[in-house]
Amino acid sequence: APSRSARPKICCPAITPEGTREEPTMQFLLEVVEILTSYIKKTFDKSTKVLDFHYPHQLLEGIEGFSLELPDQPESLEQILVDCRDTLKYGVRTGHPRFFNQLSTGIDIVGLAGEWLTSTANTNMFTYEIAPVFVLMEQLTLKKMREIVGWPNGEGDGIFSPGGAISNMYSVMIARYKYFPEIKTKGMAAAPRLVLFTSELSHYSIKKASAALGFGTDNLILLNTDERFNSCFILFLCSCLQGYVPVYVNATAGTTVFGAFDPINDIADICEKYNMWLHVDAAWGGGLLMSSKHRHKMSGIHRANSVTWNPHKMMGVPLQCSAILVRERGLLQGCNSMCAGYLFQPDKHYDVTYDTGDKAIQCGRHVDIFKFWLMWKAKGTVGFEQQIDKCLDLSAYLYSKIKNREGFQMVFNGEPQHTNVCFWYLPLSLRHLPDGEEKRERLHKVAPKIKAMMMESGTTMVGYQPQGDQVNFFRMVISNPAATRSDIDFLVEEIERLGQDL
Amino acid sequence: APSRSARPKICCPAITPEGTREEPTMQFLLEVVEILTSYIKKTFDKSTKVLDFHYPHQLLEGIEGFSLELPDQPESLEQILVDCRDTLKYGVRTGHPRFFNQLSTGIDIVGLAGEWLTSTANTNMFTYEIAPVFVLMEQLTLKKMREIVGWPNGEGDGIFSPGGAISNMYSVMIARYKYFPEIKTKGMAAAPRLVLFTSELSHYSIKKASAALGFGTDNLILLNTDERFNSCFILFLCSCLQGYVPVYVNATAGTTVFGAFDPINDIADICEKYNMWLHVDAAWGGGLLMSSKHRHKMSGIHRANSVTWNPHKMMGVPLQCSAILVRERGLLQGCNSMCAGYLFQPDKHYDVTYDTGDKAIQCGRHVDIFKFWLMWKAKGTVGFEQQIDKCLDLSAYLYSKIKNREGFQMVFNGEPQHTNVCFWYLPLSLRHLPDGEEKRERLHKVAPKIKAMMMESGTTMVGYQPQGDQVNFFRMVISNPAATRSDIDFLVEEIERLGQDL
Repeated sequence: APSRSARPKICCPAITPEGTREEPTMQFLLEVVEILTSYIKKTFDKSTKVLDFHYPHQLLEGIEGFSLELPDQPESLEQILVDCRDTLKYGVRTGHPRFFNQLSTGIDIVGLAGEWLTSTANTNMFTYEIAPVFVLMEQLTLKKMREIVGWPNGEGDGIFSPGGAISNMYSVMIARYKYFPEIKTKGMAAAPRLVLFTSELSHYSIKKASAALGFGTDNLILLNTDERFNSCFILFLCSCLQGYVPVYVNATAGTTVFGAFDPINDIADICEKYNMWLHVDAAWGGGLLMSSKHRHKMSGIHRANSVTWNPHKMMGVPLQCSAILVRERGLLQGCNSMCAGYLFQPDKHYDVTYDTGDKAIQCGRHVDIFKFWLMWKAKGTVGFEQQIDKCLDLSAYLYSKIKNREGFQMVFNGEPQHTNVCFWYLPLSLRHLPDGEEKRERLHKVAPKIKAMMMESGTTMVGYQPQGDQVNFFRMVISNPAATRSDIDFLVEEIERLGQDL
Repeated sequence: APSRSARPKICCPAITPEGTREEPTMQFLLEVVEILTSYIKKTFDKSTKVLDFHYPHQLLEGIEGFSLELPDQPESLEQILVDCRDTLKYGVRTGHPRFFNQLSTGIDIVGLAGEWLTSTANTNMFTYEIAPVFVLMEQLTLKKMREIVGWPNGEGDGIFSPGGAISNMYSVMIARYKYFPEIKTKGMAAAPRLVLFTSELSHYSIKKASAALGFGTDNLILLNTDERFNSCFILFLCSCLQGYVPVYVNATAGTTVFGAFDPINDIADICEKYNMWLHVDAAWGGGLLMSSKHRHKMSGIHRANSVTWNPHKMMGVPLQCSAILVRERGLLQGCNSMCAGYLFQPDKHYDVTYDTGDKAIQCGRHVDIFKFWLMWKAKGTVGFEQQIDKCLDLSAYLYSKIKNREGFQMVFNGEPQHTNVCFWYLPLSLRHLPDGEEKRERLHKVAPKIKAMMMESGTTMVGYQPQGDQVNFFRMVISNPAATRSDIDFLVEEIERLGQDL
């Protein structure tokens, strides 16, 4: 019948594992690599667009035959290759030097190679038994990170987790376990009302953790900061809290929007006075510890009890790569261990303290360490330092370029501490309006409009948001060492081109 | 100076992103691909060892120049390639057809290609803005999975999470939010004492979740099962709990050690009677829903309020790929959302309900969907069914081979429900000993000894553990469709070869 003869010749079940030695299978994989390397080359070619935007309904309808539906019958290998091409075509090039939309950008070739190897090895971090090399790499890298934080001899503990939010959640769990270990078995009912502190500009994951872990978001006190952390207010609150026990303060090293650094030493003094856990959320700022020029911004970080540090942000490691570091050994294990017999047999023939899985809230845990380890080998500590200094230099260039430029207005005073540069762009029609509600309302709509046009033209991407009573402004961040001054110039001119006549 | 001239010519900073168009960079990536494809070919060659075991101190000392230490100065690209080779060399081939050690095994070439593409795209699931295609793929795949679970029209909600333990944690969080939404803001203090139920053979992640979320492990009632779930006992307990509110029951579909399926319909009846949340942990068993021959083992699963299902286990998807499915829409969002302004701007130019990030406890979320979606395209629903049936047939073959074999003794009666086959191997010296404490003590040491010899000879790997008052036994599981009867024969003979004279 004609419909039968139209069926593809190479059908995927041909790639059974038994067939792996055969030519078509390896040929398929190499053709995928061809697609990927060609994608990478284009990503670094600035004449390529950052994205080719489509609305959800367009993609769902199936543009140019690209169907997202899952079939009952197998598709041909040729079709799978087409699907791979289409997936990349309609996606966003986060490695493009003009993609400034998130804290994680760029594409590091050695990191990428590391991730390809990781998925080929396809193993799990829970035991030394099935991940001997990766477990040791994790251990050595965590120790190095703790040394850089400044804990004596790099002593302490830690684990790589699936992102900064989970790392921050760990910090709250460990703090609770340190002061009220009985909560593990008896629940929150066994403890007095516990209070946590963070600044209102801190990452929302602290709030998520306080909800998830049973503290309740009402018991997380959000400190007003005026861009900087008001440590005096904690002092005041601690002294007048009645019937509540303050246990935890999160200091942010590099806030998400402003890139501000809380004064760690001031906060550490208060934590010592009131016997509270000091966590430093350096998910974004941690990379600056690699820079002798910038690490002073985190002065006092060695006094923290725990630190979140995401190499997948400022250090350019492919997603995901986030570490929670803990100064005191044993707490992670004590807090989370459940001693599952089928994984953590005590009678193994090697030292089972290398089986780190029971420290985690996860069971299976993705291998996030290898790409980071490999990049460190390839760049050396000095390479990371250069890369980070370069990004900060670029943001200083942006700041000096727009701080007095016609139509641009900075959101906060002074030089940015991190690569975050926050600004409003005022179209011509708004520049001579008197300050007031009308101007605010109109300005609030400018950034979303420019952003929408940017995405539709696909030339560049940058984030925006309101913050407190400040209407929508652009937040520029730079974490991709491939970006250059000409990309910064381009962004500024593109905003002017798109927004001038709004 | 000689030491200078000995320095490598191609140094990694040459792979700056600007240099990506240059030959050396792409050459490096292709050389890594060469290493990886050669690794894959060897993995499917049964004459290759499963592992080349070394003790931690050996690897830490640096075998044959393989140094794990992180350098200050960059290493050469040649050295990076050597590091990649060494990392694979001293690792474990989890894709080898004789690796039976975990629930996640095998290496699917299309899945692998999907993961390579994912890491090249290097984006994040939190918004449609930066992951339009992946967000839609996730939505369609979750809907398909809910249809297969049996919820009308596949309605409901869900999310991919970093592993089954986190998916199970989500189920407890959502159940709590459903009955006591005020806990999100007021904490556990706002609710009465809540009780959770699970079987003692369920996965330890339920216990981890009850500790982490502030319930306390004492308030998780572990039901005695005698291999099967005792639903009458829940009924009894619910009727006599005074001052406690039972809210949640976890039924396991495919326990970790025995592969047993709890009677979902019986448990659903009790949950309806007492208005409790029914979660089905089908992390391991979920794959069987794809098989018309085996899905009856989960009869009643459509009555669950939530389901954990890990495609990275029985469906052979590369790690990590785990879904939490929820029958009622809106709960995930309600439970976790914090409305961060910098990510989830309400004034975007597309339908922001596609921004799924605020449903998660994570902020950044790795793209776990693409490899699964691509495999589904390549195999079709029928391909997954064949693959799963094949693994179950193989385990039936193993069971029939050893159930009456000299020296082998089954741990539980009757045919395995899943691919788990649990057995003791008795060396000649133990076979004629009378039952009693001496025999138990000696038998307890047999499996660890055989396992250690297996790992040192590198020929095969299978797990063991004690369970309750049963001394160490082997747990055989099959999830790699590349395994054949000859691999099963090999395992049985290898255990006899290594263990006979113990």
